[in-house]
Amino acid sequence: EEFLTEDIASGDITSEAIFHRGQEAAAEFVAKEDFIAAGLEHLAVHLFLLCNSAIQCRGIRDGSRVESGQVVFSARGPINDLLRAERVGLNLVQRLSGIATYTRSFVNRVGDLPVKIVDTRKTTPGLRVFEKYAVRVGGGSNHRFNLADGVLIKDNHIAACGGISLAVKRLREKIPHTLKIEVETENIDQVKECLEAGVEIIMLDNMDIRQMEKAVLLTAGRALLEASGGITLDDVRAVAETGVDLISVGGLTHSAPSCDISMKVE
Amino acid sequence: EEFLTEDIASGDITSEAIFHRGQEAAAEFVAKEDFIAAGLEHLAVHLFLLCNSAIQCRGIRDGSRVESGQVVFSARGPINDLLRAERVGLNLVQRLSGIATYTRSFVNRVGDLPVKIVDTRKTTPGLRVFEKYAVRVGGGSNHRFNLADGVLIKDNHIAACGGISLAVKRLREKIPHTLKIEVETENIDQVKECLEAGVEIIMLDNMDIRQMEKAVLLTAGRALLEASGGITLDDVRAVAETGVDLISVGGLTHSAPSCDISMKVE
Amino acid sequence: EEFLTEDIASGDITSEAIFHRGQEAAAEFVAKEDFIAAGLEHLAVHLFLLCNSAIQCRGIRDGSRVESGQVVFSARGPINDLLRAERVGLNLVQRLSGIATYTRSFVNRVGDLPVKIVDTRKTTPGLRVFEKYAVRVGGGSNHRFNLADGVLIKDNHIAACGGISLAVKRLREKIPHTLKIEVETENIDQVKECLEAGVEIIMLDNMDIRQMEKAVLLTAGRALLEASGGITLDDVRAVAETGVDLISVGGLTHSAPSCDISMKVE
Amino acid sequence: EEFLTEDIASGDITSEAIFHRGQEAAAEFVAKEDFIAAGLEHLAVHLFLLCNSAIQCRGIRDGSRVESGQVVFSARGPINDLLRAERVGLNLVQRLSGIATYTRSFVNRVGDLPVKIVDTRKTTPGLRVFEKYAVRVGGGSNHRFNLADGVLIKDNHIAACGGISLAVKRLREKIPHTLKIEVETENIDQVKECLEAGVEIIMLDNMDIRQMEKAVLLTAGRALLEASGGITLDDVRAVAETGVDLISVGGLTHSAPSCDISMKVE
Amino acid sequence: EEFLTEDIASGDITSEAIFHRGQEAAAEFVAKEDFIAAGLEHLAVHLFLLCNSAIQCRGIRDGSRVESGQVVFSARGPINDLLRAERVGLNLVQRLSGIATYTRSFVNRVGDLPVKIVDTRKTTPGLRVFEKYAVRVGGGSNHRFNLADGVLIKDNHIAACGGISLAVKRLREKIPHTLKIEVETENIDQVKECLEAGVEIIMLDNMDIRQMEKAVLLTAGRALLEASGGITLDDVRAVAETGVDLISVGGLTHSAPSCDISMKVE
Amino acid sequence: EEFLTEDIASGDITSEAIFHRGQEAAAEFVAKEDFIAAGLEHLAVHLFLLCNSAIQCRGIRDGSRVESGQVVFSARGPINDLLRAERVGLNLVQRLSGIATYTRSFVNRVGDLPVKIVDTRKTTPGLRVFEKYAVRVGGGSNHRFNLADGVLIKDNHIAACGGISLAVKRLREKIPHTLKIEVETENIDQVKECLEAGVEIIMLDNMDIRQMEKAVLLTAGRALLEASGGITLDDVRAVAETGVDLISVGGLTHSAPSCDISMKVE
Repeated sequence: EEFLTEDIASGDITSEAIFHRGQEAAAEFVAKEDFIAAGLEHLAVHLFLLCNSAIQCRGIRDGSRVESGQVVFSARGPINDLLRAERVGLNLVQRLSGIATYTRSFVNRVGDLPVKIVDTRKTTPGLRVFEKYAVRVGGGSNHRFNLADGVLIKDNHIAACGGISLAVKRLREKIPHTLKIEVETENIDQVKECLEAGVEIIMLDNMDIRQMEKAVLLTAGRALLEASGGITLDDVRAVAETGVDLISVGGLTHSAPSCDISMKVE
Repeated sequence: EEFLTEDIASGDITSEAIFHRGQEAAAEFVAKEDFIAAGLEHLAVHLFLLCNSAIQCRGIRDGSRVESGQVVFSARGPINDLLRAERVGLNLVQRLSGIATYTRSFVNRVGDLPVKIVDTRKTTPGLRVFEKYAVRVGGGSNHRFNLADGVLIKDNHIAACGGISLAVKRLREKIPHTLKIEVETENIDQVKECLEAGVEIIMLDNMDIRQMEKAVLLTAGRALLEASGGITLDDVRAVAETGVDLISVGGLTHSAPSCDISMKVE
Repeated sequence: EEFLTEDIASGDITSEAIFHRGQEAAAEFVAKEDFIAAGLEHLAVHLFLLCNSAIQCRGIRDGSRVESGQVVFSARGPINDLLRAERVGLNLVQRLSGIATYTRSFVNRVGDLPVKIVDTRKTTPGLRVFEKYAVRVGGGSNHRFNLADGVLIKDNHIAACGGISLAVKRLREKIPHTLKIEVETENIDQVKECLEAGVEIIMLDNMDIRQMEKAVLLTAGRALLEASGGITLDDVRAVAETGVDLISVGGLTHSAPSCDISMKVE
Repeated sequence: EEFLTEDIASGDITSEAIFHRGQEAAAEFVAKEDFIAAGLEHLAVHLFLLCNSAIQCRGIRDGSRVESGQVVFSARGPINDLLRAERVGLNLVQRLSGIATYTRSFVNRVGDLPVKIVDTRKTTPGLRVFEKYAVRVGGGSNHRFNLADGVLIKDNHIAACGGISLAVKRLREKIPHTLKIEVETENIDQVKECLEAGVEIIMLDNMDIRQMEKAVLLTAGRALLEASGGITLDDVRAVAETGVDLISVGGLTHSAPSCDISMKVE
Repeated sequence: EEFLTEDIASGDITSEAIFHRGQEAAAEFVAKEDFIAAGLEHLAVHLFLLCNSAIQCRGIRDGSRVESGQVVFSARGPINDLLRAERVGLNLVQRLSGIATYTRSFVNRVGDLPVKIVDTRKTTPGLRVFEKYAVRVGGGSNHRFNLADGVLIKDNHIAACGGISLAVKRLREKIPHTLKIEVETENIDQVKECLEAGVEIIMLDNMDIRQMEKAVLLTAGRALLEASGGITLDDVRAVAETGVDLISVGGLTHSAPSCDISMKVE
Repeated sequence: EEFLTEDIASGDITSEAIFHRGQEAAAEFVAKEDFIAAGLEHLAVHLFLLCNSAIQCRGIRDGSRVESGQVVFSARGPINDLLRAERVGLNLVQRLSGIATYTRSFVNRVGDLPVKIVDTRKTTPGLRVFEKYAVRVGGGSNHRFNLADGVLIKDNHIAACGGISLAVKRLREKIPHTLKIEVETENIDQVKECLEAGVEIIMLDNMDIRQMEKAVLLTAGRALLEASGGITLDDVRAVAETGVDLISVGGLTHSAPSCDISMKVE
């Protein structure tokens, strides 16, 4: 991948000068803290094989609970190739495991309630598919992947059309029939408008607990309700208890702390 | 760029259905907290122009101190193109400003001392040049960009050669004469070996304050000393006071919290 | 684009030898039969500008009804660049206008009924977005664009899960909540199962008119019904009259005859 | 290839949710009508291997006469990978077999006469090498592949130079000596001019049978004669009997009906 | 182009540190010896514009005779962009002008004789179109560009078919009728075989002057004769006087000395 | 690689028409003169495997001294694939071996003196990493690879800053601490300025022997001295005897004559 090129450029001049071609070694990724593994089972393996398809390696199952000190990935092959894969492999795996771990903490808070924790498009440019995968590994669900595979009507769209029902109507004519329509609302009146327009998903944006409860009552199952807007680990439980169907959290991908993992070579 | 493709795929079906081609609007990025701006002066402008070269836009100077509520970027052009650039633009700018802000906080702690705060290769895959730029915007300095433009001899290399001086000797023969040699050391004996071998940069890896002070005394200016290993905002001042020349902090890029910025359209 | 490279390779050796650099000319695309225009307003313009951004050109509005003999596109610029764009431009425009024209003939047959004519994934490899655009120009609607932006459960999926309701249940857990679920059915019993499972779209695959009528009665608006399977211009009216919501026609893209258009240069 | 990306995008979300990784199956392409196979022996195999190099598959020899109901391609491997290759594989193979079949019908009409059926540059953008291959499979021959590997002087070129002999002279000086020169003519006088200028190939564009016969007599073997211009299955025999050497038919590639083939999975 | 990336990588760190953004300057390419210019009129201009489309620049007409000390290219624009284009621009222009100059010296030796000096496929990987252009600028002609746009039957092909006439026959059936057939011969008997087989171009490979004269007599204009094999400036005149039609010289591209040109900035 | 595409384009039409798929053969590269091998051990092998990964091949060790007539590379596999790799393989290997051979001749002149022969950025666009590798094979050393991995302050930079010490100071602040600073000087006064500014490498550009000797005396080991500017085989010995540390020679890459190698197939 191009990630390797970015890190290696024209070659690891240090290792090439010191090790002779084909000198073999064993390497291990070791956890320096507890976390939920993501990216070790498939992605790290793929990356090491890109450096040299003769490397023998294997990683822990994605979704596993890992303890500090545990070996989560091991590889054997030419040492120069192991070292070339090291930095990019760690950078990716630390980030993805961080996302999975952070997602899991949200999911754990609401695990007994019928609600889904979903991500957003606030992902790192270039890493969206990996990061959304890590969210799933952590027990979360994915919102739309890009602007083409989901419809989300926001305030600017509503204003331009002169109302929610008109905006919905115009979209129904143009989009594939396989897509549901979601509308971003800021108050209960807009929720009502959505229900009248037959909207399938209603986003409750930055509403307080009281408003969400009202929206749930009002909707009575006629649409999916998605709570959104700066929801943190502290308040996710209260939001879930209002009865909304989905809670979207941008922080799953943009604020998850990286996990600490290091590589040992022998 | 490919970041836009990742987010937009075959098109923003919502906006294309609602706005007519060429409908104009004005958009602004608004700071929701205080931070150091990075990525707004050049990168965001470049990104919006990629969506439509007819967009008129301008961002605040990189390195500026921004206050919550301040407009940091404004653009005028076809609304569909503004919305296409929105998400990727925010994702990038929030991350880069986060890095610049975090770097600045390190730099501020040691500002009166003759020491540089430097980054590492622990960057987000695909974003290295941008993230290293943000470090510089924040007042930090860059370590090597990739495995080809710098030499760093680690314990595995030393072991394979049978000693620091042998490793250094082998490298001198092979690398371009324009590069300095850096060696990672774990104790004072290794620092001594480095000095005897004429190493230009000595990394003090995970040493305590006492050891670093000894290394500074011992070296007496004959090499650059780089402190490294889990150094945080809390202890960076103490490390700097030992007299080392450089302090490298992986967290500048892998643990900087994103800044909160949002886009308003009219 | 790469289409130009495919046709031009290292250069139009004939024209380069004969015309001198910068020799200007005017070119026109002329219709040799009646059709609905598609690809002339934006795509052909884009293509000619790729050959030379100084070419001045303009095409007829996509969706216009064109008569034989009519000029549908005109361009002025260096003759060598006009000739380089000619063949690829014609090949694309003839195909897209063919699709729009063929789609329109389906739409006309059912124009007074509340049914949509939709396309499929049976498009020319490499041209999907263009061909799906031509379907819309012709008055049709688009089905999903790729395997990632829509869910379609087929017989193999059902068999693997042990029933429609189980398959639907498993998908609900994993897919983004923004997507509707469509199931391919072959008989009325399967339609019933779909309704019980809360499926949003039911494909009636290769059913006869009688079966479709039954499905419409049974469904009573609880799901969208999509008729599919070798439906031609001859029977599309009868299918529409059964009351289905959608009729998908692979032939819109894989069997539309090309329109006849030629380029004149002066 | 990029054709797969176009169809699959970020993944087949239906199948990935239903089948577990590595679940094996067998798939077959079955002919739904009689045709000449093209693209099954090499291209389809290549495509399935791109999805997963562990798939075992094999297709019928290109050029074989296939009967309705016959299995023309069979594959065994992970079911998810078989399904990912299905649509693109069918779309390609149906089109290429359609071209081979259509070409064969032309060739059969003139099979006993010393004439070649040749294609043109009127191919689907992006598929030229495949479509020209299908023409050869059907028994036809290829005209030039692009603007760089053949010379064709048309009326605009002639007008710009002030006559055929001047145009030919200018080209002889500039083009590689490995290429023959072809000139497009519209009447017998131009054929005469070509013969005087030593042109190697003369295209008889839109001439009637009588004119072609005259051209054949006049030429007497001194140049290759290529009949061109809207020649159909109905009149190809009459054209061939005039004694021309080549008959070029744009319809081989732009108007060949797709063959009907479907994939069965077990 | 990628050539710039190869030279600049992540940036010209020296100039970026010293000059401020947008600082303007004027640059000139100055000839340090006499030569025939190639690559200055179009290619160098294109390259500088790639660095910054706001640079104003212009180069001497390709094919001009240049004297030492003459300014052959001048540019004005941001100094950092001028310096980024410098090295790649010089490397290309020195090589291409070298080829044009070397070709001209061959052409001058035989200028009064009806023979063409042609190049081969012995070009620098990645630069073929540029180098073949430089040959034309120097007054030479181009042989085939690649393995697909020309036919050359060598000894291995002949051996595999069991004779020249069989090889020619097999090719006539398969290749586009727009291509001539060339055969490599090593003695007069093979020339005879070629003439009997109706070969259009006969390569006389490593023959001596006496043999070439015989071949010319024998052929008597029925085919083009191409002399080939280590022909130098010293013997090109003698070869030309034998009456062959073409002389191919691999050295035009693989052994032409670079011209000496330097860039001055103010 | 793209080099193969450049040479082969849509296919080797001659060989494809004559040999049947899978026909096997053995091929050998034979030296036609004495030289130092470069590119045969790894690059040529890689290239042939790109044409067909089933080819069995092996080349002589890079750096070996080869005699005319010696087999330097041998391969066995499908003949069509061998022939497709032939031309590009020879073009690369002849150039690289030429560079290694030419470099070795410089190195041999100064072999007993403590000086390094280094290359420059005057390489063939697109081939820099290969050509710099060939320099190392020939016993030379590499200067910086691109504008980002080395600092070289030239006269324009000095003028813009108002003196060497100011330019050096500004760079020290901005560049990674892993890079040495090199300054281009034209006279002894500038050398002095460099020494005062603590410059690590001083280039002596176009100085005469007397000046170089002075510079060596003056520097007394406080910086590396690099002689530069049109140094040839004739005067390299005299330059080396002045005591400079490095001699850079642009001609290593831009003026090395290609070696003569040919391929035999059986």
